[in-house]
Amino acid sequence: MTSRAMWIGVVIVWWLSAIVHSLRADEPQPAEPAGPLRAEFAIALHGGAGASPERWSSEQRQAYERSLRRALQIGYDILKDGGSSLDAVESVVRCLEDDPLFNAGRGAVFNAEGRHELDASIMDGRTMACGAVAGVSTVRNPISLARLVMTETPHVLLAGPGAERFADQQGIPRVDPHYFWTERRYRAWKESRPADDESPRGTVGCVALDRRGNLAAGTSTGGLTGKMPGRVGDSPIIGAGTYADNRTCAVSCTGIGEHFIRYAIAYDVSALMAYKQWPLEKAVHHVVHEKLKPGWGGLIAVGRDGAICMQFNTEGMPRAAADWRGRFEVKLGR
Amino acid sequence: MTSRAMWIGVVIVWWLSAIVHSLRADEPQPAEPAGPLRAEFAIALHGGAGASPERWSSEQRQAYERSLRRALQIGYDILKDGGSSLDAVESVVRCLEDDPLFNAGRGAVFNAEGRHELDASIMDGRTMACGAVAGVSTVRNPISLARLVMTETPHVLLAGPGAERFADQQGIPRVDPHYFWTERRYRAWKESRPADDESPRGTVGCVALDRRGNLAAGTSTGGLTGKMPGRVGDSPIIGAGTYADNRTCAVSCTGIGEHFIRYAIAYDVSALMAYKQWPLEKAVHHVVHEKLKPGWGGLIAVGRDGAICMQFNTEGMPRAAADWRGRFEVKLGR
Repeated sequence: MTSRAMWIGVVIVWWLSAIVHSLRADEPQPAEPAGPLRAEFAIALHGGAGASPERWSSEQRQAYERSLRRALQIGYDILKDGGSSLDAVESVVRCLEDDPLFNAGRGAVFNAEGRHELDASIMDGRTMACGAVAGVSTVRNPISLARLVMTETPHVLLAGPGAERFADQQGIPRVDPHYFWTERRYRAWKESRPADDESPRGTVGCVALDRRGNLAAGTSTGGLTGKMPGRVGDSPIIGAGTYADNRTCAVSCTGIGEHFIRYAIAYDVSALMAYKQWPLEKAVHHVVHEKLKPGWGGLIAVGRDGAICMQFNTEGMPRAAADWRGRFEVKLGR
Repeated sequence: MTSRAMWIGVVIVWWLSAIVHSLRADEPQPAEPAGPLRAEFAIALHGGAGASPERWSSEQRQAYERSLRRALQIGYDILKDGGSSLDAVESVVRCLEDDPLFNAGRGAVFNAEGRHELDASIMDGRTMACGAVAGVSTVRNPISLARLVMTETPHVLLAGPGAERFADQQGIPRVDPHYFWTERRYRAWKESRPADDESPRGTVGCVALDRRGNLAAGTSTGGLTGKMPGRVGDSPIIGAGTYADNRTCAVSCTGIGEHFIRYAIAYDVSALMAYKQWPLEKAVHHVVHEKLKPGWGGLIAVGRDGAICMQFNTEGMPRAAADWRGRFEVKLGR
């Protein structure tokens, strides 16, 4: 009996270790462990590449600057206090999603049928875990739903009604589709200026390095004005609109999404750093000015050392950046 | 009046040239022009990475081999006669989609709700143009719908009901969702073997080099058995499941799509060749055996010189390859 019990024990231990091993093999592995708090942290955000801010009224410019500064402060405070880059990215993007100025969340543009379909994604550079949603129309903060896809499902991307049903299961705030177009100012802005090139093309995004050396990136958008129903751009595509890897950088893109998908733009910045040992600045410059053509868009990136890089080939890209050395700035044009 | 007419003419010419320029700037540029017919051509296809073929009956193995050989012959004939790699890829994938043996088109697996949601993508390595559909449930050949997204819309990816409506507009063959589960043999196979690891995990794909030196890749799938509704895997994601660039290679992936998205696997093969000057074989080996973990999947690739590479880290991957030098082979396991 003792011998039999021993064998049963051996089998149970083997069986448990096999289960643990199989779970491990399917889970993203941390690129590096969480370390002690360091001094360095950095954050950058964008409100969409597009037209020159010189075309806007001074009231509009001030409104953009106020909104960007408020969002930056939220992320800055989280990181300064030792919070995670993932929390900073989610909080900043939520703030921009709730602001009707930007083409994401509340201010999402109209598709060809006069409806709204929102996309978002988020990525954790420490574990390479990522989550995304595409074509949701009743979720107030798509970036938070994307984070739940990352943490609460075995999947990366949920689209359309399936994503909405997942939102139901998770009990996250839903809104009537009306929410995305009741804002009077937004409607007036739409009616008076239907041309897309008068406005930032779309998309908000945030990248951050936290004080444990972990990178994260997130992007959220209403897509292109007049897009076909069901059209998915780069924002919810990991590798195209969003990427983060602790070994290289975190990236969030904005522009004509089709081109960003075609050239795997967000991942490409990381690949140039990893494979050619290029510094962040050189990798971003190559991607924005050599791979992409003038007018297609831009991106923001932060490196593992806290370097911030924000480049675009449009006339403007509302953006903001802050870091541990006291940098705290907001810009709209070149 | 003559002067005025001249000025009107000048304005019209300027306006037309501006339109042509803007169209050009937004269109993918050919990576290289079409050249004269050469001797070289090559094609490879896969029917999904998964279990060892030793677990199947000899009838099953023979059925797989017959199906793969038939599909290979279709692509081989197109390429030998000077047809385009895009036509070869679409025709081969259509053949595999119509075959209930494979987890794509007719043989698509069931999602968590007992329904079918199909994904596909295609990419032209000459122009970098690409198209994809996700979550379609009434389209007989998703690969052909993906090609129409590429050629007939300004977009890359259409998902769900929007993709179905586009299929309506294009008048391509639709089927009752019943089509995807009436096949008696397929139902029996499902009922007796619900475990996913008994079957190829999913996905069919094809890569080809034609006699004008142009590369193309395509992938089509029913996704993962029991996937959440709305889940989108790597197959319709350009850069993750499919990639083609005349300057490097064409790639089609199969496996647990989430990991292929996370590491931008299809694009990564191309990036390693472009940035590290690695040969195709070395790039594919690194991606399949270093980036991915055992059991996650595999891929097929063809280089611009006609080199074919098919690697996987599962027990088996039904696959076939042919080229201008007389290679014509079908394999199931290692």
